[in-house]
Amino acid sequence: MCSPTTENNNNNNDHLVQSSDPNHPANLIPALCAKFWTLGWVTGTGGGASIRSDDLVYLAPSGVQKELMKPDDIYVLSLAAQAQSLDKRQRVYLRSPANYKPSQCTPLFLAAFTKRNAGCCIHTHSHWAVLVTLILETQGAGKDREFMINNIEQIKGFGKGFGKSGNLGYHDTLKIPVIENTAHEEDLTEFLEEAMDKYPDTYAVLVRRHGVYVWGENVHKAKTMCESLDYLFQLAVEMKQLGLPWVTDIEPTVPTRK
Amino acid sequence: MCSPTTENNNNNNDHLVQSSDPNHPANLIPALCAKFWTLGWVTGTGGGASIRSDDLVYLAPSGVQKELMKPDDIYVLSLAAQAQSLDKRQRVYLRSPANYKPSQCTPLFLAAFTKRNAGCCIHTHSHWAVLVTLILETQGAGKDREFMINNIEQIKGFGKGFGKSGNLGYHDTLKIPVIENTAHEEDLTEFLEEAMDKYPDTYAVLVRRHGVYVWGENVHKAKTMCESLDYLFQLAVEMKQLGLPWVTDIEPTVPTRK
Amino acid sequence: MCSPTTENNNNNNDHLVQSSDPNHPANLIPALCAKFWTLGWVTGTGGGASIRSDDLVYLAPSGVQKELMKPDDIYVLSLAAQAQSLDKRQRVYLRSPANYKPSQCTPLFLAAFTKRNAGCCIHTHSHWAVLVTLILETQGAGKDREFMINNIEQIKGFGKGFGKSGNLGYHDTLKIPVIENTAHEEDLTEFLEEAMDKYPDTYAVLVRRHGVYVWGENVHKAKTMCESLDYLFQLAVEMKQLGLPWVTDIEPTVPTRK
Amino acid sequence: MCSPTTENNNNNNDHLVQSSDPNHPANLIPALCAKFWTLGWVTGTGGGASIRSDDLVYLAPSGVQKELMKPDDIYVLSLAAQAQSLDKRQRVYLRSPANYKPSQCTPLFLAAFTKRNAGCCIHTHSHWAVLVTLILETQGAGKDREFMINNIEQIKGFGKGFGKSGNLGYHDTLKIPVIENTAHEEDLTEFLEEAMDKYPDTYAVLVRRHGVYVWGENVHKAKTMCESLDYLFQLAVEMKQLGLPWVTDIEPTVPTRK
Repeated sequence: MCSPTTENNNNNNDHLVQSSDPNHPANLIPALCAKFWTLGWVTGTGGGASIRSDDLVYLAPSGVQKELMKPDDIYVLSLAAQAQSLDKRQRVYLRSPANYKPSQCTPLFLAAFTKRNAGCCIHTHSHWAVLVTLILETQGAGKDREFMINNIEQIKGFGKGFGKSGNLGYHDTLKIPVIENTAHEEDLTEFLEEAMDKYPDTYAVLVRRHGVYVWGENVHKAKTMCESLDYLFQLAVEMKQLGLPWVTDIEPTVPTRK
Repeated sequence: MCSPTTENNNNNNDHLVQSSDPNHPANLIPALCAKFWTLGWVTGTGGGASIRSDDLVYLAPSGVQKELMKPDDIYVLSLAAQAQSLDKRQRVYLRSPANYKPSQCTPLFLAAFTKRNAGCCIHTHSHWAVLVTLILETQGAGKDREFMINNIEQIKGFGKGFGKSGNLGYHDTLKIPVIENTAHEEDLTEFLEEAMDKYPDTYAVLVRRHGVYVWGENVHKAKTMCESLDYLFQLAVEMKQLGLPWVTDIEPTVPTRK
Repeated sequence: MCSPTTENNNNNNDHLVQSSDPNHPANLIPALCAKFWTLGWVTGTGGGASIRSDDLVYLAPSGVQKELMKPDDIYVLSLAAQAQSLDKRQRVYLRSPANYKPSQCTPLFLAAFTKRNAGCCIHTHSHWAVLVTLILETQGAGKDREFMINNIEQIKGFGKGFGKSGNLGYHDTLKIPVIENTAHEEDLTEFLEEAMDKYPDTYAVLVRRHGVYVWGENVHKAKTMCESLDYLFQLAVEMKQLGLPWVTDIEPTVPTRK
Repeated sequence: MCSPTTENNNNNNDHLVQSSDPNHPANLIPALCAKFWTLGWVTGTGGGASIRSDDLVYLAPSGVQKELMKPDDIYVLSLAAQAQSLDKRQRVYLRSPANYKPSQCTPLFLAAFTKRNAGCCIHTHSHWAVLVTLILETQGAGKDREFMINNIEQIKGFGKGFGKSGNLGYHDTLKIPVIENTAHEEDLTEFLEEAMDKYPDTYAVLVRRHGVYVWGENVHKAKTMCESLDYLFQLAVEMKQLGLPWVTDIEPTVPTRK
């Protein structure tokens, strides 16, 4: 067989992951994942991160120890080539590392890149994210599909939404949709895309009993929103333990300036 | 236009942030912020730190990843030049980094420098600070404006107050005022200044659902008081979870020596 | 006497622990233990790790500070020579470090190597493991001998069992047997072996009020399963504090694909 | 005046703190304190550590940031010279750093060295130690003066007592006396010494609402016992939150071997 995939795998385009620039995606993904490991976000090979640079998408492989990843471990995929693929489940890798399998998170990362034009997508298994979805579960169907919190300063760390300028305000209510987990991570894709359609301004989707996907225009925005969200999830769990509500009705004490 | 600001921005005084001394403010702010990031104080670009050296004030920009800051990212401002500005909200920067915006915390840091002659001011979004203000909120208006704790050894980490020598004693009650958060961080300034007037001896002000501002005569004192305060906030939350009161009436068992 | 043991101890085979390869077991055990110390798994000389490479078993000594261990501190033992020993409690070391005693965990590590053909075995004193056994203890005899959790994504981090390919699924229930602690760690061995016989697919055994033993085909698998398990133990304790059950009956929302 | 103190201060014996050996006390105290800072044991200049080498005692100064200490900051004192001093509160320093004051912990460290022949003494302000003393306080006078825990493996990390060989067993009950805090740290000395007399086998004394002092024959033993104790304090607080008792009556399941 002589498909582009096979050809590319043969000469394998190793130059795509070789750079002395610490901000090159192939260097940045391992550095980010090592940092995320210390935060408990990518424990035991769970979770991960992907970066898009124009048409190219850089992806960590399946099942690696995230704090030990190397640039040589990174997959590279072309969005344009992928779009031309007849089978949506078939990936067209420009570069594949030896001895690895692609991550099951790949179609979820691609959804953020193609539907939201994101430059980076992070997936964590953070305890706080999982606990928030478990706490919501006890509130009965209907109320359990949305995490809401307001009147916390850290909410300002979020943009107003895709294609909108500016960030949320202190009195705004941050809403993060929750989707149910599926037996196979790839099967989450359609539910993630549905949530993106229903919540066009969200930069994150919680996955019940699993974790969270967070994306942003670039690495900086995806990472800082992921940190802010994890902060809010942790705070929400601690508030629950102290019997404090996540949403309150506080009147602005000072008129909001434009 | 030919104002000093524009002139200064043109030649930009980069020498003000270039030093091989690790204790130079332009080197120290990034080092401190990297350390604070590991403590969870400046998650997701929240929080920050500012240092004053005689007339010059060194400030981190808005929206940066605090653990990745570099000396080149630092703003420098002259207190004397600022005092002559007709518009209090207009900042007169001697040096501005490219591609950044000044931090909204700037007027709050300046309040500590001008009203308290502080040499350093730290602003954290620590969970423990936020949780303490949330717990106080449940105690009803009137009781919710002051964090109080006594009979804990770590209280000795605080000075007696601005212009006074010596530290608090074990049996003294540490009181930290709480101000309400505002939609825009700059609008906090007048409330912070009010709290400084009402509590002339305090080295810190809590901001409801937001975090804490802590200052001191120099970096050493601001940092160690901020650590001691965060320790006490964490202890207070843990005491609350265990049903233990923050203020107790313990008689000294040994006569206090002078 | 002129036994192989004595001979080997005399010339002591130091070459067995000298390698410039960071993945050599004598280098890897100290690096792993330093990492585990930061996770709170091997506090105060407790816990440890052992690696098997073909016939050779590499072991940390008793009572060392795990974050300060050096390759020179490592014991080496031959499984073949050990199998020929008449006294099962007598160890036949090819290489012994000066000034140390062998670890009491040795026979437990050997059980994982000989009965499960493991390539690595990790023993932690993690708080979360101990707390899980304490919580189970309150559920009465009969129910206290097995930790069970299901419908959490991280469960997928576990293999289906010794000699089976593939990992557990999201809806599978992870079961970890609990054995009672004994006054002497060596006396745990027979109970650990019994649990291995009763739970042929398990990769871990909890020890009541003590910690956990986790093994795997190689270092990668043992370490990532140990991380996943610690994540689940922590989650289980947090779920208990929030009144959430560890085992739930959730129907798959999407047909499971083969 | 021409006392030995003054003389020694003049030539100041800087050689006593200058060594290229990382295990020299003047190098080891800063390294240990930096590690303890990351554990939350010496937050905000609280806590510290002292090492004795034969007649010489090495001490950190008062009020320093413990993670930034340098060998040049260390005080050195002679036990023999100290013993000849007429005023017990007067310290006879062989070497004093410039611009510092001696630590108020000094007489407490000296008590461990002179009354227990310790080689190292560590003082932490760990949250867990403070919380344990607060929890005990709620149990009423009489029951509040002793922390007790048993049937936890980590108890084996403690020696049987001063001058005795071997460690505690799994079924032994670890008992740590609690003394009341005093307004001045130096005033704790007599109560610490009383507790040492009443509990001749203990290697630690808790100080109510303050922290813990832990000592050992050498640095290794003091540090690992301090780690084990902090582990047990943390576990005890977590057990309290889960409603689990610290002391239980478990019969050995296997006959204890000699």
